[in-house]
Parts: sequence; C-alpha cells; structure tokens
Amino acid sequence: MIRKLLLFFAAIALVPAPAMADTLVDNINGISIDREGKVTRFAALVFDENGRIVQILQMGDPLPRTEYRVDGEGRVMVPGFIDAHGHVMGLGMGLMVLDLSGTTSLEDALATIAAYAEANPGRAWIIGRGWNQEKWGLGRYPTAADLDAVVGDRPVWLERVDGHAGWANSSALEIAGVTASTTSPEGGRIERIAGSKAPEGVLVDAAMPLVADKVPAWRADERDVALAKAQDLLVSQGITAIADMGTSVEDWMTFRRAGDDGRLVVRIMAYATGVPEMVLIGGTGPTRWLYDDRLRLNGVKLYLDGALGSRGALLLEDYEDAPGQRGLPLIGGTDLRNFMSRAAMDGYQVAIHAIGTAANREALDAIEELGATYTTEQRWRIEHAQIVHPDDIVRFGELGVIASVQPVHQTSDRLMAEARLGPDRLTGAYAWRSLAAAGAPLAFGSDVPVEFPDVIDGLAVAISRTDKSGEPFGGWRPEETVSREQALAGFTAGAAWAGYGDGRFGRLVVGERADFVFLSDDPLMASVTDTREIAVLETWIGGVKVYDANGDGAGEDAMADDGR
Amino acid sequence: MIRKLLLFFAAIALVPAPAMADTLVDNINGISIDREGKVTRFAALVFDENGRIVQILQMGDPLPRTEYRVDGEGRVMVPGFIDAHGHVMGLGMGLMVLDLSGTTSLEDALATIAAYAEANPGRAWIIGRGWNQEKWGLGRYPTAADLDAVVGDRPVWLERVDGHAGWANSSALEIAGVTASTTSPEGGRIERIAGSKAPEGVLVDAAMPLVADKVPAWRADERDVALAKAQDLLVSQGITAIADMGTSVEDWMTFRRAGDDGRLVVRIMAYATGVPEMVLIGGTGPTRWLYDDRLRLNGVKLYLDGALGSRGALLLEDYEDAPGQRGLPLIGGTDLRNFMSRAAMDGYQVAIHAIGTAANREALDAIEELGATYTTEQRWRIEHAQIVHPDDIVRFGELGVIASVQPVHQTSDRLMAEARLGPDRLTGAYAWRSLAAAGAPLAFGSDVPVEFPDVIDGLAVAISRTDKSGEPFGGWRPEETVSREQALAGFTAGAAWAGYGDGRFGRLVVGERADFVFLSDDPLMASVTDTREIAVLETWIGGVKVYDANGDGAGEDAMADDGR
Repeated sequence: MIRKLLLFFAAIALVPAPAMADTLVDNINGISIDREGKVTRFAALVFDENGRIVQILQMGDPLPRTEYRVDGEGRVMVPGFIDAHGHVMGLGMGLMVLDLSGTTSLEDALATIAAYAEANPGRAWIIGRGWNQEKWGLGRYPTAADLDAVVGDRPVWLERVDGHAGWANSSALEIAGVTASTTSPEGGRIERIAGSKAPEGVLVDAAMPLVADKVPAWRADERDVALAKAQDLLVSQGITAIADMGTSVEDWMTFRRAGDDGRLVVRIMAYATGVPEMVLIGGTGPTRWLYDDRLRLNGVKLYLDGALGSRGALLLEDYEDAPGQRGLPLIGGTDLRNFMSRAAMDGYQVAIHAIGTAANREALDAIEELGATYTTEQRWRIEHAQIVHPDDIVRFGELGVIASVQPVHQTSDRLMAEARLGPDRLTGAYAWRSLAAAGAPLAFGSDVPVEFPDVIDGLAVAISRTDKSGEPFGGWRPEETVSREQALAGFTAGAAWAGYGDGRFGRLVVGERADFVFLSDDPLMASVTDTREIAVLETWIGGVKVYDANGDGAGEDAMADDGR
Repeated sequence: MIRKLLLFFAAIALVPAPAMADTLVDNINGISIDREGKVTRFAALVFDENGRIVQILQMGDPLPRTEYRVDGEGRVMVPGFIDAHGHVMGLGMGLMVLDLSGTTSLEDALATIAAYAEANPGRAWIIGRGWNQEKWGLGRYPTAADLDAVVGDRPVWLERVDGHAGWANSSALEIAGVTASTTSPEGGRIERIAGSKAPEGVLVDAAMPLVADKVPAWRADERDVALAKAQDLLVSQGITAIADMGTSVEDWMTFRRAGDDGRLVVRIMAYATGVPEMVLIGGTGPTRWLYDDRLRLNGVKLYLDGALGSRGALLLEDYEDAPGQRGLPLIGGTDLRNFMSRAAMDGYQVAIHAIGTAANREALDAIEELGATYTTEQRWRIEHAQIVHPDDIVRFGELGVIASVQPVHQTSDRLMAEARLGPDRLTGAYAWRSLAAAGAPLAFGSDVPVEFPDVIDGLAVAISRTDKSGEPFGGWRPEETVSREQALAGFTAGAAWAGYGDGRFGRLVVGERADFVFLSDDPLMASVTDTREIAVLETWIGGVKVYDANGDGAGEDAMADDGR
C-alpha cells in the first residue's frame, strides 16, 4: 500500500507545473568556475520561481521575455561563496557572548571582561570566547588569578580563539570541582601552577568539559537567535552555504526548526559531532537535501587531535618549543577505523579533523586501509590538513582525499607554527599548492568562529600568503600560493563538491540554484592589494536577495528591484 | 534582513495559485459530526489538489464540474477515525517480534515461544509481547523456570500486554545481573520466588529496564520498517490520525525521516516521553504541523502510575486482592507540578497517564493548582482516567480536563478490575457517560498495541459495554454507555480537538483535510450486533486512497477510480 502511495506521489511530482514567473538578471560581468578552476563568463542569467537557473546568456544573445528583470548595473557576479569548514552555532553563540577576539593584550582583555561583567549584572556566568595569548604576546597562558582580579563574584569561562582551550576563574574552577587532586582526563590537560599541583586556570581540549559542562545550557529560544545572527553575518560576507563541522543534536533541531519555519536562509552541510549523534540524526544514512537544498546531514566529524596553538596537534616528532610533548591523541587506531566504517557502510561522509603530521598520517593510513571496502562515492575529507609530513602529501592525491583547508589560518598561525615546529619542519605546512598538485580536491573555509568568515580575505591569502598588512613581504612560503582560479573554486565549486552540494549549488550553470554575489571588482583580475578591497555588494540565495550592502532591499523580490 | 526575507516568503504564499484539479466524491451517505455529537449528513464533497475539502453538497445540490470524480456507490462515508491514545512504534515493533496476544494458556504461549525460537536461530534475543496471565486463567505470574524449559540457550524478554511488566528467562536475568540481592527500584517490583529472595522472572514497571536496557537497540532501518507496518495496520482499521503517547527522540527522528521521504501517511500527534525529550524535539514550543498536517509535537506524556493488571495503578485504598498494596507511584507532588509548569509555560500540552483513583486525584489536584496560571488554550489531558473516585468525576468538567479513554480496555479488564477493586469500588470505573455528563471533553482511543486498534469494536463497546461475544448480557455497568453520536465523536472530532487537530482534520467540513472512511453500514443507525459487523471498505487521507479492503487501488489517484 505504502509503495503504491509513493508511486502516486511520484506521479504527481512529474506533472509539469504551469509556466511560472522567471527572472532575468542581465547587464552583469558573470563568472562561474568549476572545481578544476575552469572559468565560464556570461552576461546574463535567468532563474525560475523555485530559484533554479534555467538559462545562461552570453553577450549578444537575444534576451528572453520574463516576468521580472534585475539590472546588474554592469557589476561582477560570482557564485555564492561556500565556507567548507565552520561552526554555525558557535558563530551565532559567539555573537551573543563576550567577544575577546579583538583584544590586543591581557590588560586589554581584562578591562573588556570587567566592563562586560559590570554591564551584565544579571548574568549568572560570564561566558566568552576569542582570546589568544599568542596574539597578546603574553608568552604564557592567562590564569585564574588574572581573572579573579576583575571578576570574583561569579564564575567566568572563556574559550580560546580556536576552541581548544578554556580559561576559568577560581569561582568556575570551584563549581567544577577542579583542584590540585584532579587528574587530567585522557586527551586533555589541566594547566598547573609552576611548582604546584594547583590548577592555574586554563584547561586544554578534553579537560575543558570539566568546567564547560557546568555552564547553563543554551535555551532553544537563545539558539534560534544565535542561528539568525550567524546567518546574518554569513550572508554579509557573501556566504550562501557552509559546512557545519560538529553538529550536535540540539544544533540539528535548531536548524530543522528554522527550516520548518522558513527561517533557514544559508545552506548547511552538517557533520554530526560524533557517531551516535550521526546515527540519531540521520538514521539509515545521510538525510535528503531538505528545505529546497538548504540542509543535509552529510556525515560525521571525527577529531584525531587538537590544535597547534594549545599543543594539542599530534606530531610525529616533539614540539620544537616543548620537548617531550607530541600532542594529545583523541581518536585513533581501531576506534577510528570502526567509526569510519560505521559511517561509510551507511553512506555517511567522514570528515577527519587532523592538524599535526601524526594525525594526518593516521587519517591517511585509515583511509587507505578502508579504501578497499569503500571505494566509489566516498568523499573522504581531512579537515585542516595543516601540518602534513612531506612524504604524505602525494597520498592525498592517490587516495582522492579532500583537503579541507582554511587559508587565513596560515597568516594567523605562521609565527606560532614556526615556534612550534622550528624552521626545518615547515615544508608540508599549509601546503595548498602541493596538495592540489598531488591531485587532492581542495575545499576552502574559514573555521568560523575561530577566524572571521571573510572570504575576500581568504582569497587574498590563498593567492599571496600575506596577511591584511601585506606581511610578510612576498608571502610566507609563497611557493604554496594557489592561482586566483583555484582560490575561487575552493570557496565555491570545490567546497560544494566536498559537501555533496554539486549539481545543486556552487556554480552558476543551468539546473543549479541561483546563489550569487555581486562584487565591487573581479577577483580573477585584481591584484592582491585590490582583491583585499573587494566589497560584497549583494548576496542572493535561491533567487532571493538576502543581503544588500546598501542596507535596504534585502529580502525584497525582483519586482522591487526593477521598480515595477 | 531575516525578517524581510520572511515577509517576502509570506508575500509569495499569498499569491493565489492557479485553479488546480478538484475531485468530486458523490453518491455517498456522508456523515460528519462535531465534538459535541451534532451530526451533519451530506451527499457529496469536493476536495482540492492539496487534499482539502472545498465544498460539501446536499442531495439535490447542483454538482460542480471538476477534473476528477469518484463514485461513492451509495456507501456510508464517515470522517477518518482518530485514535486518541496509541503507541505507533510500539505497534510497529510489536509486528516485528513474537506476538503472544493470541495465546490462550501458558502452555499455548510456551509452545509458541519454542516454535519461534526454533524458526529464528539467528536472533540473539527472543523478544516478544502480548502475554496476559489473566486471560490465560493462570492465577499467578509466569516464571523464568517456565521459559527456561523451552528456551535455555539465549535470553528471552517478553512484555506483558499492557507494557507494564516483562517476563524474562534465567539467561536474560543473568545478563541483567538480577539476583536475590537486587533490590526493586523505586516505582518497580521484582517478583520473587515464594519463601526466597530469588527473582521469579517477572519485573514490574520501573524494574523492567533492568532487563529491557540490555536488549539490543532497534536499528534505524528496522524502525522505518516498523513505522511502515504500523501505518499499514492503522489505515486498514480506518485510522487516519493517532496520538502517539510517549514519543522518544528516536521515534521522532523516525517520523521525520518518513515525513521527509514522503512515507508518512497517518497523521501523528506526538507526546514526548519526558520533559527533556520534549524540549529537545520541540525547542521553543510545540512544533508546527509538518508535512501537510501529518506530524506535530504537541507536548509531553507524564506517567503518574502503572497499570491495574500489574497492580501498578495508584489507589486511594488497598487493592482488594492484595491487602497492603496501593500501587507504585511514578511522578507526583512537586515533580509533577514542575514538569507540568515547564511544559505549559512554553505552550506544550500535557497528557497525564492516570489509571487509579489516587493517580487521577493527584492529576486533577495538580491541574487545579496550575489552572490559575495556565488558563486558556491549555487542553489538559488525563490518559485512561480508568478508575476515578466518584467525587472526582465532576472535577473533570469543572476543570475542562479531557478524558482520554479506551473503551475496549473496559471489556478486557472488567473481571480483573472486579478482582482488584471488589464490587463496591466500581462506581467511577470506566465511567464514560458520567465523565461526559460532567462536561469532560471525551477522546477515544485503543492504547494500541495494548489492544488491537479496532475502532469498530471500540464503537460497539462504547455504546454497549459488551465484548465481542456480547458478554455480559446487557452490558457491564451499562449506565456508563455513551450514545452512538458520542462514540463516533470520540473517535473523530473529539480526538482531533484533544490533539490540536481541530480545524485541520476530524470532521468533513470545508477547510479540513479530506480524511474519510467508506464503511459497509451506518454506525449511527446500526444495532450493536450490526455495528460489530461493519467493515472498513476504504481509507482516504488528504484526498488520497491509502487502503482498499479489496486489496487493490490503494494509492491510486482518483482518475484510476472513475476509469477515465
């Protein structure tokens, strides 16, 4: 019976809809690019009422008669940017808590914290994120005592910029019961006061939940606000789709609630925060593309190691600046292979967080071992692929492993990476061109909220290996820059393919969604300096304008735009 | 920006769709009924392509020209039946495990179990349900030793028909670690061998998880099959909507997966199995009606007591057949009120399981206390309302509490209820007419899979208080029968209102969904004996035929039916 019902529904779906209103967008300098970097230029496009592209036109092609028309005013149009690695709810929640990412010193941070606490007397906990002792030039971790001096009346918990360490005051440590006699959990580290066993204030990686689990959980209505704030920010950067790396069940429910209510704007490719969450959310396999290609559970995120800054990244040899330390292993060996197998056997995608040389090698080993069983259609991803042993770079190509990298990390991390690894072990560090040359599919992201999701900056870094100040002159290890075309593809078609969005979005071709951005300049023609000046003027998703730099018109339909 | 986008979507929705294909169903003896029991008869109806009724026609009204036409062949049409209390996944899973509900004696059951074990050598556990020592006339609980005699090589776990007790063999008890030294958890009871502390084999209520938690969890693909089987069975009984009482997160994900895939046929009004599950699923409040009014999380199910058969029901006085026992309290007091408040403050509905007199009084007390805070729109439900103290019946009306009752329970339970309560405490037992007369909104259900979801039988019991054999002659406490109209309303409009389905389904009126059943006779005109003979000929949900007793045509569209 059910089968027959399905056939009936299928039959209904096949009845062609009556001709609906199409929209012509003309007078544009249109650019599309495939994931190999092949560029197509065009002068106009037409999308239908469902927001799908039905026609791409070249200069001189006769313009079709459509119900609506948008004048592109000669501007540059590129595919909507896709962030291949981010944390959507982390971004949104970060926008709702104390943001320390702009602080320039410990003193600056403490003053910011003190002011925030005074301005928010009703908050039982002071929660924040974004600190970076490297950026402060502190030469050590901040301490509970530092915090106690400015907030003593209630607990404080502040996540490091990379999410791999947390900074607590004494009140928070007390609530968490973290004392001199607390042992560091496996995969984590409680920083101790020198010459003592007493906790110093910072908890690394797997030790973080000792305090974090005591923080009052976010309410569903707060989550809804966080998602809205995250989406607002993303579309302002021209981002029309993002891979969410580490989706909790609560996150997923928040996405679905938004989808059900018509509040889901940005397309989300979700990777569950663990195998149990993946199975609960997906059930028999990845979900369908829901809400007109706005949400899909692709698979699972597995963490092999921590971050380089907190010395959690797994290295094949000792940290240069911490002899005897090689990082904190999270998952590996048989556990890793079992999780990967559990996911792959039901068609889920596996995205493996691997920062250090040992983690990358372990991930590649596991993929190679499982490769015989799960061959076609498995798009294995390694997230970050940050410090890869030179011998392993070629394996990305041989195994067809997606290198999901974050260009801006390179500029943020370069001094720290030099300190952690020393000058002689940087050959496979942030080695984008080598990875691409080896045949690895590239996908570019920001790791938002670890970095601000500025795709324009990401493009500039990818082609120059310089930061916003143009430092270092000529670029850091400039032999690993990529071409303008590779950079744009990494943030569009490459990122779409890496998240099973290909055929739906990522390119401006017939049949895909009309997700596009109007830019102030052509990123394939501009100098590095000029690239940095490119502005996102408008962002459109599925044929609907969702951001306008002029501050109005977003969300209006095409009719409003051409004044009819 | 998001707000503007929403406005844009809203504007799109307001554009009237072009005229779509309507379907006329004529030549029918149509019956609709409101929840007060007021009957409307009609001769034809028209529904649109979305499955919504757009016209109701009387004999002699000019027939509209429509694209499609279905000849009702003079048959009786009633609104689709709604089961106000069931367990959808329990039904489906029950259809996938050993079914003991048809067994007539312990020996019969043991033979069935032995045959099943032999036929399923690959199953690591033998799982089943449906046994009833009362029906067997056993005079005691079955034991592990009984089971060991037929299955000794692997664990066996069999749930009682009411789901409030489980029967384990020695292997299962061993795996669960249930021994003479295991204490019964609060709210549960480990039955012991007389003159010993050794477990006898049956675990009641809160003791059940000791074994049940060791049973391998259902896989997602098994859950999908279970849901499909449940739906097939429900539509064969004319059931087009059901309240799911105790939805787990896994259940909810199964429903959503079906909805996303277009496999959700029956409308489900879901009540989460606890407050944490409710909050995780619903987030900020009840979900919207999803999938064209096929799924909504309404709120939460709270359990105040167990069942009468297992002496878990909470009584104000001792069990007649077990002096000193008054049942097993599950939630009550401040906990109950806090849970109710947590739900009500976000607009969730609360359905309170209350079987015994003390549980019903506790539920009413809590509702009365909270009533001052949560007045309008809170449709408090008491599930079962089985044995109500005569003084409390009027309070259902005063407080506007929905009495969600299961007529067939009365016939299954009457001998057991007489034994448990004695003859003098039956005045408020299964007191449907008194509850209705007091002003309680009535909603009728089956408690499937505790009872087979046979609505026709439910109607016959409701109006006669006799079982399928016509016993007892003249009905058991016949002063508590309801009218034919009340009975039909309880299984249609009353059940819809109790689950916030009113205005969407439950009646055959313009604007509601075309959910209807063709019956072989008129349940408002037939004698009790003739009522029992009524057959469900076809079941339609949202204008689509989903069941045909002739075994074909289900799922075909209207075109196929009228041969064009």
